Amino acid sequence: MFSNIRIVLINTSHPGNIGSAARAMKTMGFTSLYLVEPKLFPHDKATEMASYAVDILQQAVVVSTLDEAIADCSFVMGTSARFRTVPWPLMSPREVAAQAIREAQAHKIAVLFGREQTGLTNEELNRCHYHVHIPANPEYSSLNIAAAVQVLAYELRMAGLELNNQLKQETAPILGPESQEYWDYRLATAEEMESFYGHLQKALIGIEFLNPEAPRKLMMRLRRLFNRARPDMMEINILRGMLSAVEKKVR
Amino acid sequence: MFSNIRIVLINTSHPGNIGSAARAMKTMGFTSLYLVEPKLFPHDKATEMASYAVDILQQAVVVSTLDEAIADCSFVMGTSARFRTVPWPLMSPREVAAQAIREAQAHKIAVLFGREQTGLTNEELNRCHYHVHIPANPEYSSLNIAAAVQVLAYELRMAGLELNNQLKQETAPILGPESQEYWDYRLATAEEMESFYGHLQKALIGIEFLNPEAPRKLMMRLRRLFNRARPDMMEINILRGMLSAVEKKVR
Repeated sequence: MFSNIRIVLINTSHPGNIGSAARAMKTMGFTSLYLVEPKLFPHDKATEMASYAVDILQQAVVVSTLDEAIADCSFVMGTSARFRTVPWPLMSPREVAAQAIREAQAHKIAVLFGREQTGLTNEELNRCHYHVHIPANPEYSSLNIAAAVQVLAYELRMAGLELNNQLKQETAPILGPESQEYWDYRLATAEEMESFYGHLQKALIGIEFLNPEAPRKLMMRLRRLFNRARPDMMEINILRGMLSAVEKKVR
Repeated sequence: MFSNIRIVLINTSHPGNIGSAARAMKTMGFTSLYLVEPKLFPHDKATEMASYAVDILQQAVVVSTLDEAIADCSFVMGTSARFRTVPWPLMSPREVAAQAIREAQAHKIAVLFGREQTGLTNEELNRCHYHVHIPANPEYSSLNIAAAVQVLAYELRMAGLELNNQLKQETAPILGPESQEYWDYRLATAEEMESFYGHLQKALIGIEFLNPEAPRKLMMRLRRLFNRARPDMMEINILRGMLSAVEKKVR
């Protein structure tokens, strides 16, 4: 699926940006890089910035026109910070990623990134089915090219994981002690919590912190606190060990 | 809302990464940057990579410890590629962004980014309420720091834009201490939590439950437990009152 999605960088001036873009791609699982008339490539600075993604640079396809880069693609989108005079179908990275991932099961897809200073030309943007606008700070919306590649590749990866239903396995909503495949010890049961609260109350009376004649809302507040944390059994054993150590000292 | 969210870079080696991170922040509308012991800062390379985000660098707060950087924060999250031996509550960038944006209306928030090669130490990760894992390519998951900042800042911005659109039809999220209009006392800050953990450790040594020569992972497990609960100031006062009562008895 991901192999059908290519990143196309047009007329990049700084070879370091090509390397950083390759690294961004690889961290998100993409490997297909097309370079349209890069100013300097290959280049040491590109290799340096690519870090462990040099394989992406080695496989990169260098072409002299955009048309060659996207010839076999059926879905082309172009990133653009500016709003053009003739409005084009426009999507956010999240929306376009969902559609691209669905379509990538059927055919090839290209995501275009323009020049450092001037972005994509109108002619290049006219080649696109959709324009993608990263909803950046209106006061300073100029993302570095590699940063823009990172955001798009990240959204594509998230859309891909979601489609495969892998997202839940990889990072279930909130992985805390509630998620037992992930946590190290099992959650305490209500009965085990009650024994702990009983032990806690006894110890607090023992150190004269809790007066059974005027308990106020102390146990209620402590229950609320520990219930929020959802203790696992190791934690309950530690807490009860602490209480026993206190009781031994007080005796 | 965004002004309550700070980015904390720890021990960054390459000044260029600090500059790129500042640019990534500014494009997403964030301005508060804390640097814990940067290797080289200020530095020409940082200024160059920041592009039009030099103001972020000029306002950056340089401190010598993580504790100083997060002292007044009530919600701290740390980015981590590795899974640790003691699992911590874990969220994806999207999930943590939604929660952070809601909480940023009430109090200060810190997002921590570790060293280029080694990330955050276990001790630093223990300071966090949540760990954030960018669901990267398992075969190459090492995002450049500025790229990781870009992804988190992008998700935070998207969550902020979403919240603003949905404020009217907002269905109540889970109401806990994070939601300050609803809760009775304010959340403890990182500094107040550190004082509590210091007190707890002293008391545990006092009752000979914790052996400073062989601490094992006791404090780590207790940190994780209490960080999950997000104690408010009334609860911290109760807990410290309990510790003082124990210390009085032991003496």
